[in-house]
Amino acid sequence: METYYAVIFTSLRTGQDGEDYGKMAEVIDTLAKQQPGFLRVESVRNEEGKGITVSYWESLEAIQAWKANAKHLTAQQLGKEKWYTNYKVEICQVMKDYSFEK
Amino acid sequence: METYYAVIFTSLRTGQDGEDYGKMAEVIDTLAKQQPGFLRVESVRNEEGKGITVSYWESLEAIQAWKANAKHLTAQQLGKEKWYTNYKVEICQVMKDYSFEK
Repeated sequence: METYYAVIFTSLRTGQDGEDYGKMAEVIDTLAKQQPGFLRVESVRNEEGKGITVSYWESLEAIQAWKANAKHLTAQQLGKEKWYTNYKVEICQVMKDYSFEK
Repeated sequence: METYYAVIFTSLRTGQDGEDYGKMAEVIDTLAKQQPGFLRVESVRNEEGKGITVSYWESLEAIQAWKANAKHLTAQQLGKEKWYTNYKVEICQVMKDYSFEK
């Protein structure tokens, strides 16, 4: 297995500015996918506004570059001001993976 | 930061055996929390049956012991036979974390 990295983003939405949030989420998703070193993303949010997004990256440098992206910095700021009651970010090295498919 | 580990479980439910699944999910959640080395768990599933569960552990040994737990092995088997269309498991070492709270 090639070494790769995961960023786990666990959050609770305030429910504020639903439309603005939706637009920005789409922009951020598109931009992330264009970043060098981006591998893939998995995202789930339930009806109560709790969400987990895991993005996967080739290197820690790729994660740092994405964190410092100008548009992403704006989104992070708005996230704190308006969109999230709380969130947690964990940067991980994936050591092992396996999967099952019917 | 103390070294700790995350198990990312991404899955898609078949929708089969909803009641049995719910009961087993509760049993497994209770048992996991009683395991030595268990830290915490975050879990979200949306209306389409897509879910991400991240459990956090003190060591890789704790993760291995939980994977080999008898009741958990039964659940894993039923998961493949009935409950999941697909799933992916990633075992990670958390390298950095930060959080925000309003």
